[in-house]
Amino acid sequence: MAQMGRNCISIAKKINLLNGFKLKTQSARAASTVIAGEPSGPTVKTDIPGPKSKQLLEELNSLQQAGAVQLFADYDNSLGNYLVDVDGNVLLDVYMQISSMPLGYNHPELLQLLTDPHNMKTIVNRPALGVFPGADWPNKLKNVLLQISPPGLSQITTMMCGSCSNENAYKNIFLWYQQKQRGGGTSFSQQEMDSCMINQPPGSPSLSILSFKGAFHGRTLGVLSTTHSKYIHKIDVPAFDWPVASFPEYKYPLEEHERENEAEDKKCLAEVEDLIEKYNKRGTPVAGIVVEPIQSEGGDNEASPSFFQKLQSIAKKNGAALLIDEVQTGGGPTGKMWCHEHFNLDGPPDVVTFSKKLQLGGYYHKSDFKPLQPYRVFNTWMGDPSKLLLLQGILNVIQRDSLLNLVQKSGEKLMNGLKEFQKEFPHLLYAARGRGTFLAVSCPSTKIRDDLVARMKKKGVQMGGCGDYSIRLRPALIFTPKHADLFLERFRQVLKG
Amino acid sequence: MAQMGRNCISIAKKINLLNGFKLKTQSARAASTVIAGEPSGPTVKTDIPGPKSKQLLEELNSLQQAGAVQLFADYDNSLGNYLVDVDGNVLLDVYMQISSMPLGYNHPELLQLLTDPHNMKTIVNRPALGVFPGADWPNKLKNVLLQISPPGLSQITTMMCGSCSNENAYKNIFLWYQQKQRGGGTSFSQQEMDSCMINQPPGSPSLSILSFKGAFHGRTLGVLSTTHSKYIHKIDVPAFDWPVASFPEYKYPLEEHERENEAEDKKCLAEVEDLIEKYNKRGTPVAGIVVEPIQSEGGDNEASPSFFQKLQSIAKKNGAALLIDEVQTGGGPTGKMWCHEHFNLDGPPDVVTFSKKLQLGGYYHKSDFKPLQPYRVFNTWMGDPSKLLLLQGILNVIQRDSLLNLVQKSGEKLMNGLKEFQKEFPHLLYAARGRGTFLAVSCPSTKIRDDLVARMKKKGVQMGGCGDYSIRLRPALIFTPKHADLFLERFRQVLKG
Repeated sequence: MAQMGRNCISIAKKINLLNGFKLKTQSARAASTVIAGEPSGPTVKTDIPGPKSKQLLEELNSLQQAGAVQLFADYDNSLGNYLVDVDGNVLLDVYMQISSMPLGYNHPELLQLLTDPHNMKTIVNRPALGVFPGADWPNKLKNVLLQISPPGLSQITTMMCGSCSNENAYKNIFLWYQQKQRGGGTSFSQQEMDSCMINQPPGSPSLSILSFKGAFHGRTLGVLSTTHSKYIHKIDVPAFDWPVASFPEYKYPLEEHERENEAEDKKCLAEVEDLIEKYNKRGTPVAGIVVEPIQSEGGDNEASPSFFQKLQSIAKKNGAALLIDEVQTGGGPTGKMWCHEHFNLDGPPDVVTFSKKLQLGGYYHKSDFKPLQPYRVFNTWMGDPSKLLLLQGILNVIQRDSLLNLVQKSGEKLMNGLKEFQKEFPHLLYAARGRGTFLAVSCPSTKIRDDLVARMKKKGVQMGGCGDYSIRLRPALIFTPKHADLFLERFRQVLKG
Repeated sequence: MAQMGRNCISIAKKINLLNGFKLKTQSARAASTVIAGEPSGPTVKTDIPGPKSKQLLEELNSLQQAGAVQLFADYDNSLGNYLVDVDGNVLLDVYMQISSMPLGYNHPELLQLLTDPHNMKTIVNRPALGVFPGADWPNKLKNVLLQISPPGLSQITTMMCGSCSNENAYKNIFLWYQQKQRGGGTSFSQQEMDSCMINQPPGSPSLSILSFKGAFHGRTLGVLSTTHSKYIHKIDVPAFDWPVASFPEYKYPLEEHERENEAEDKKCLAEVEDLIEKYNKRGTPVAGIVVEPIQSEGGDNEASPSFFQKLQSIAKKNGAALLIDEVQTGGGPTGKMWCHEHFNLDGPPDVVTFSKKLQLGGYYHKSDFKPLQPYRVFNTWMGDPSKLLLLQGILNVIQRDSLLNLVQKSGEKLMNGLKEFQKEFPHLLYAARGRGTFLAVSCPSTKIRDDLVARMKKKGVQMGGCGDYSIRLRPALIFTPKHADLFLERFRQVLKG
């Protein structure tokens, strides 16, 4: 086990750089995606957290609020789909750092990248990208981020994390909206320039972003006003009084409840229209609508392609931007690079935000959202070339190993298993849902859900919860049908009790 | 020149890890801090931006709003205090990526760090630190971030950048404030839990953070409501209606205007007290006061130690937290690790935020600001161990090479030069000010300022502006008196016209 990590460097091969191909059209060639040396299964030696984790937790708790820590990991010895903890437990990880590790642990291609002197210098010389970008920055944007841009979106702004990507995307939407009000003029009035300095209109206008109940878009003050998944995220923090519409709550299985679910779509969309009208009238116009393609943190709540198509049409009709937040769904786990590609929209959304699996953050947008003046969407770093470097390696492996195809295959196996289980254990599971390996299933109560997650950990599987009643699966893109078999086998054991 | 970068790896020595010493008590031993191979002076071959930079700018502009870009850099060949651009110009950099590169470019100790297999794995396996921290995380916090904690602050929360550090620090202050209102109880009312989900009081309370005119605390929506440096940062973006007090505007030289400046302090502090009373009365109590120890982006505006002492006392009296934002001032450029250490405060501030030179972001705080529940100050990544790794290397060099002493020496030389110049060229410069190498000088107009900065660039010196009229110096901590001589010599040539 201790050798695993070291070996994976020596077996690494020279990485092939992305050379202008589009990742969307992957070849179907088979490839062994299992990293050499990956454990053949989980091993559980102690309680989790074990004694060493508990001791470290005590130390950490003396420095900060560490109540959310589940275990301390041994990242040097974790590999592929397997997370090793400090007590020597080896866990099949289907949660993958809240869905942020596309190639699992210690992927040899990524370690190999760090031996290149240019790449080392990229890590050490972090520039203020908005002022002094490096020689290769435009090419990197083109050959990495724009290779996977959502169809129809040609503009890219880089950031650091999901919250700041959404925050800056909202800002960008507000600039676009006000620019429209000016009818194309590029100059600001003295009153606007003066009043904004003390947070007053007209310079600081009363505008809003419409969001949905159950949504999660981040935790800084702007995006937190559009987050509505759990009270613990929001309580005691001031918020903007912005409109919040209902998100569809479907009955499952979908094929048996088409009529009810269509009515649910209709009800929610009517609410969106009512809220836009209401907020426009009360002087806080809706400049944009933000929505996740699958509400992740809020419980893996899905809506139909038709819902998203109609939402886009409502946004257009009302002069509001449509922002699709792909922070958790982006990067391949649904079997496509972007989840909204499943929706057959009438043209691209106006703005698409990303982070997590893409290592850095940022947003793609239509060209009419490009701010007319510099320094309006700006900060010291504007992203991080060292993260783009890792993303380049990740995309190369996704392409080389046809990982989006693998996601579809492994996802199908997982979904079939979950559907079987919900028939077999209807008192424990229902509403198996999702796309690719981005899957979830609900439990009748939070207690049952938490109990299943805890017992799976004892069986050596690291899962995650979402919403109040759901289990979410967020394996890495290198999760194979064999890993799916192993997961399902352990899950069945746990469900049997 | 092209060899420079490569050589610096081979001359690197094994890094000594920090072993529990406090950086505040540096030994005075002399050390050669100049990186082997650093150019002996600037070389300017083309206009800046030169033809290659211009071509790259065109490419970048087709992908994003790139109007703030000054040049494209060749980071592989930049070294120490010298930035090399893609046209082969070699610039003495006294701006250093908006003050975020403490050891300049390609410091051998930092490159050496990246050859360690454990460190490589730290870069590749980025965890969700709030849930699955690595085995060495508590120790890293203790041996790196807490080694330089502001005196009296024992708690640390890590983040990613300046904006999100301040955003989360504000949140933390709001939690603390509401907790006080509950009188120590730990439970929330059903009404609070329900109302916060739709952004309404009492769960989303009307609370405020008091800030100062001229301040810069970041650009996401919460902190942008406390930023008041330039309209272009704020216009068209909704803001919280929070109180904004005047920040002292001193007359220089300070020693000739003691009485006026004292009166200025008094006026501003009275305004703070009035605003607190006013906002408390109108139902938007001031939960915290945020202030930079030197207003950086806003024009390097200083206030006296006595101003900060009294501000702290006003905060205490009114039950508001005092947050000192050291994002730009922290990490040594004022000659102390934290600028507020110059102020002889009556005990530590409640919260101190950092980022930039510290590579990651975060905040130190008093233990009564530790949230009682987990998941309240939280996000996927909660910082970045790969940045803490770089910070560890940086602090080691600061200690080994006594860089805080060097900052004091080089700063003294720079300041003496600026003071000389403002006597010699009173029609061009006035109000030389600052601490350490964190220095500024003002010009009679924006045009004169911009002209001086542009002409210095032609002489091979990269400077930065701040506010409307000021030039700011933000060299790396490895900037020596010899570099100061060179800078002053070029500046004199430019001032002579």
